[in-house]
Amino acid sequence: MLARNLIDLNQLSLEELDDITDMACRISRHPSHYSSACRDKLMATLFYEPSTRTQMSFQSAMLRLGGKIIGFDNPGATSVAKGESLKDTVIVLSGYTDILTIRHPVEGAAMAASLYSGVPVINAGDGGHLHPTQTLTDVVTLRNVAGRTDRLVIGMCGDLANGRTVHSLCKCMARYGGNSFVFISSETLAMPAYIKEYLTGCGCQYSEVRTIEEAMPYLDVLYMTRIQRERFTDPDEYEAQKGVYVLDSKKMRLGKPDLCVLHPLPRVDEIAYEVDDDPRAYYFRQTLYGMYGRMALIIRLTSEHGHCVPEKPAADPDFICANPKCITKVEPYLPRLSLETPKGKVCAYCEHHS
Amino acid sequence: MLARNLIDLNQLSLEELDDITDMACRISRHPSHYSSACRDKLMATLFYEPSTRTQMSFQSAMLRLGGKIIGFDNPGATSVAKGESLKDTVIVLSGYTDILTIRHPVEGAAMAASLYSGVPVINAGDGGHLHPTQTLTDVVTLRNVAGRTDRLVIGMCGDLANGRTVHSLCKCMARYGGNSFVFISSETLAMPAYIKEYLTGCGCQYSEVRTIEEAMPYLDVLYMTRIQRERFTDPDEYEAQKGVYVLDSKKMRLGKPDLCVLHPLPRVDEIAYEVDDDPRAYYFRQTLYGMYGRMALIIRLTSEHGHCVPEKPAADPDFICANPKCITKVEPYLPRLSLETPKGKVCAYCEHHS
Amino acid sequence: MLARNLIDLNQLSLEELDDITDMACRISRHPSHYSSACRDKLMATLFYEPSTRTQMSFQSAMLRLGGKIIGFDNPGATSVAKGESLKDTVIVLSGYTDILTIRHPVEGAAMAASLYSGVPVINAGDGGHLHPTQTLTDVVTLRNVAGRTDRLVIGMCGDLANGRTVHSLCKCMARYGGNSFVFISSETLAMPAYIKEYLTGCGCQYSEVRTIEEAMPYLDVLYMTRIQRERFTDPDEYEAQKGVYVLDSKKMRLGKPDLCVLHPLPRVDEIAYEVDDDPRAYYFRQTLYGMYGRMALIIRLTSEHGHCVPEKPAADPDFICANPKCITKVEPYLPRLSLETPKGKVCAYCEHHS
Repeated sequence: MLARNLIDLNQLSLEELDDITDMACRISRHPSHYSSACRDKLMATLFYEPSTRTQMSFQSAMLRLGGKIIGFDNPGATSVAKGESLKDTVIVLSGYTDILTIRHPVEGAAMAASLYSGVPVINAGDGGHLHPTQTLTDVVTLRNVAGRTDRLVIGMCGDLANGRTVHSLCKCMARYGGNSFVFISSETLAMPAYIKEYLTGCGCQYSEVRTIEEAMPYLDVLYMTRIQRERFTDPDEYEAQKGVYVLDSKKMRLGKPDLCVLHPLPRVDEIAYEVDDDPRAYYFRQTLYGMYGRMALIIRLTSEHGHCVPEKPAADPDFICANPKCITKVEPYLPRLSLETPKGKVCAYCEHHS
Repeated sequence: MLARNLIDLNQLSLEELDDITDMACRISRHPSHYSSACRDKLMATLFYEPSTRTQMSFQSAMLRLGGKIIGFDNPGATSVAKGESLKDTVIVLSGYTDILTIRHPVEGAAMAASLYSGVPVINAGDGGHLHPTQTLTDVVTLRNVAGRTDRLVIGMCGDLANGRTVHSLCKCMARYGGNSFVFISSETLAMPAYIKEYLTGCGCQYSEVRTIEEAMPYLDVLYMTRIQRERFTDPDEYEAQKGVYVLDSKKMRLGKPDLCVLHPLPRVDEIAYEVDDDPRAYYFRQTLYGMYGRMALIIRLTSEHGHCVPEKPAADPDFICANPKCITKVEPYLPRLSLETPKGKVCAYCEHHS
Repeated sequence: MLARNLIDLNQLSLEELDDITDMACRISRHPSHYSSACRDKLMATLFYEPSTRTQMSFQSAMLRLGGKIIGFDNPGATSVAKGESLKDTVIVLSGYTDILTIRHPVEGAAMAASLYSGVPVINAGDGGHLHPTQTLTDVVTLRNVAGRTDRLVIGMCGDLANGRTVHSLCKCMARYGGNSFVFISSETLAMPAYIKEYLTGCGCQYSEVRTIEEAMPYLDVLYMTRIQRERFTDPDEYEAQKGVYVLDSKKMRLGKPDLCVLHPLPRVDEIAYEVDDDPRAYYFRQTLYGMYGRMALIIRLTSEHGHCVPEKPAADPDFICANPKCITKVEPYLPRLSLETPKGKVCAYCEHHS
C-alpha cells in the first residue's frame, strides 16, 4: 500500500523512500523519457507564503512531466485572504486538480489540508515544522553524488539549533545503516538535545566540534546552513563567530577529494563565491536533484490514486494542542486529533507534545 | 448565429444557454474526452482586481481543455497600471491570444473590452453589474443536481438587497417555466422592488419571509449568501440578525430529503461547518460544475469564430451615462452608446437608466 | 557560428538579424506551423521589475511554440528578494529550464546573468541600457509593413534625449543601406550628440526639426514616443510643448499614403485615439510582430544549443566601472571585465566608458 500524501518524510517506509530516490536517479539520467508521465494532469500550488524557489522547483517538475499548473503565492493580495478557511480552499482546488502542493506559515497546515483534499497533498513546508521535499532533495543528491546513503560521515555546519532542514536530514539519514554525524557550530547554535537523543536511540554516532577545520578531514559530506543574524541577542557575538562558519577555499583544502558540499540555498555569505568553482561544490546541482526528486514524487502520488476521500484519523475530542503556532489555533473547525507516540500523546497536526 | 462574447447571460437565447449547460453536463461525465478540445488555443485572463477563485476556475477550465493561459491579476503592481487604457491593453492581448476573460471593478468594462477585442470576450465580473459565469455555474449545478431548471421552489437567503449573484439568478431562472421564489431576509436586506417587478412581469410567483425555518419545508433549492457586516449602519442590528440567517444542522432537519443547498462561495459563517457533511450540501460540487460550465463556454466561444472584428452598436453622440460607476467615466475615448429597452433608454455599457 | 544569447542586438551580424526577421515573417504568415517548435522546452522569465506587457509577449511567444513557462515578476514580494545573488538565482533556474529571459532595473544585468547561465539568455531590458527585443520588434514590423529595412526616411518624435528605444533603433537601422532620419523634438529633448555622431560615422543622413508638420510629407516611417512630464523642470514648458508632439488626424493628413506610424507602447496621449482607425496606424500590429519576432528568436536560441557553459570574457582585474548604475556595483562577486572599443575601454557589462 502506497502513501497517499507526503506530509512527513518519516511516514514513508525506507523501501518507499528508496523507490522514489531510485526513480529520481532514473529521471536525472533520461529526463526526456518522462516528458509525458503526467500529461493532462493538473497541479495546484497553494503557497500561503511566498517561496519562489520551492514553488518554481515544483512547477518545473510538473511541467517537465507534461503536466499543467495553477496556483497562488501571494494570498494577502488575493481573494483567498478574504476570510476563506483552509478547508474550503482545499476542497475547491482539489476538485479542479489532480494534486495539491501546499506551503503555509502555520505548523500542521499540510496535514489539515490532507483531511479535506480529494487528491494527494504534498507538504512544501508548514511553518517551522516540516519541509519533507527539501530532505528528499538531500537524499536524492547523496544517492547520485556520493553514490550511497549509508556509511557516510556527515558534517553539519551553521545554525544547528534552529535549522528545520538539518534536523529533518538527521532523522532521515539515521534510518540508513552506518551513518555518523559531526556537528559544527557555536555553543549557542548547537544541535538540540532531542535530536542527539534520537540519533543515540537509532544507534548513530555523532560528535560536536567548534570549527570547520577540525571536522573537515573526516567528512564525506559537509552540509552548510545559514546563520541568521537575528538569532543573536549580542551583535558582537555574531560578528565574532560568523567568519568561523564561512566555508572558503582554504578550508576546502583540508577536505577529502570526494567530499560533497551541500547547502539548501539560498546562501548569503556562509560559502565564499570562490568555492563555487571547486568540483566538490554540489549545492547548485542539489537543486536539480531536488527537481528530479519532486518529479518522482509527483509521478508516484498521481499515478496510482484517483480522486478518493482520505480516511480521517480517529477523533480525540478532549485533546487541545498546547502549541500556539499550531494550525488548530487558526482554523477552529478542525477536528481534535492526537497520535500516541513512545514519548506520549502528540498533536496529529503539528506533533507538539501535550 | 452564435453569440460571440459572454457579457450578459441574458444575451444568450434559452436554446443557447441549454446547449452550453448540456455540454457542461456531458463534460462533467467524461472530462477526459475534452482534454484536447482547445489544444493550441491561448486564453488571457485580464483581472483588473484580484479574484483568485474565479481566475483559477477559468484557468483550470482552459488547461483541462488542453489550452494555455497567460494573464495578470494584480495590475496595481504591474505596468498595466502605468496609464495604459483598457482599449490598448485589450487590442494588444487579443492579438496574442484566442479568447479573453476580463474582471474589472468598473461597471460596463467587459462590454467596453468587447468593442476592441479581435477575439471572444468573457465577462468574469464587472463591478456590481454582472457576473454571468457565476449564474451559469448555478444553472449547470441545478441541471445536474436537481435534474431540471424549471418547476423549482428556490429559496434565497441573506443579503438580497446587494447581492449581484441572486439578482442575476432570479432573472435567469424566471426564463424557465414554473419556477417560484422564496426570499428569506431581514427587511433591510430585502430583494429590491425592480427584481420583484421583473419576476411578476415574467409570471413568476414569489413570497418573502423573515426566517429560514418558515421557508425550509417547501424548498427544492436553498441559495445561501453572505451578509456583510459593513452593510449595517447599526452594529447591534447586525449582531441581532446574523444568527437568524445562519444555516445549521437543526434548520437542515426541516428541509426536504432532496433539497439542494447552494452558495457562491466564499462562505464566512452563514453556513455552519457541520452542514458540510449533509448530502444535501452541494456548494462545493457547485464549484466543480462552475469549472465544467466554463469549459463548455470556452469551447463554444473559441470553436466557431476566427479573429474577426466585432460590430459596434450604433453611436448615440448625445447620450451621457448618469452612472458615476460606469466605465465611460474612466475611459473617456469610449464611444457614446445607448440601448432602447421597454423601460426607456439605458447605457449600452452598464445598463443604467438615463 | 550562432549567437548563444541575445544581450545586445548589435552583437548579431546583419545576416543573423535578417535570418531572425525572415523567420518572424514566415511565422506571421503561418503561426500554426510552429505550434510544436518548442514542445517540451521550458522558459523562465526572471522579471526583477514588473513589465507585464513585455513578459506577456514572451510568454505568448513561448506558449504559441508549444513550450512552457515559469517565472516571477514581483521579486520584492518573493523569496528571491531574501538576499540571493543574481548568480545563484540564474544558476538554479538555468538548471530547471531551457532558456532564460531576464528583465532587471540595473544596467548590465543580462550580460552578468549570461556568465552563469547554462542555457541561452535573452535580455528583456536592463535598466536604461538595452532592450534588444523592442528593436527587433521594430525591425520585424518594418520588414512586414514597409516591405524593407533600407532606403527609408524615418521620423522620430517625442523625447529623443532619454529614449532608449529610439537610440537603439537608430543604431540598428544605420546598419542597413540608405536609411535617413528626421528628429522631431524640442531643443531640450533633442537626440544626443553621440547618436548623431554615430549616424554620421555610418554615412547616414539626418535632420532635426521642431514640429511634426514640417517633417510629415517626407516620412516613410513615423516613430512616436512618450514625453514624460517628469523630464521637465519647468511645468510651463511641458504644457507649452506637449500639444506640439501629439499626433492627430489633422497632422496625419500631411503624411504619405503609405506612411507607417509606430509606437513602442504604452501610449499616454501622444497619439490621439482618432488616429487608431487610420490604416497607416501600425502600432497595435507592431506588438503582434513583436510576438512573432520573439518566437523566431526563441526557436533560434533553443534549437541549436544544448546546456553548454558559456565562455567568459578575459578578466581585467584592475578595471573598475565608473557607472554607479552598473550591475557590478550591486553584485560584487562579478569578475571585472572590460572591452576594447574604437573609443577606448568600456565596461563589458554596461558599456560605460571608464
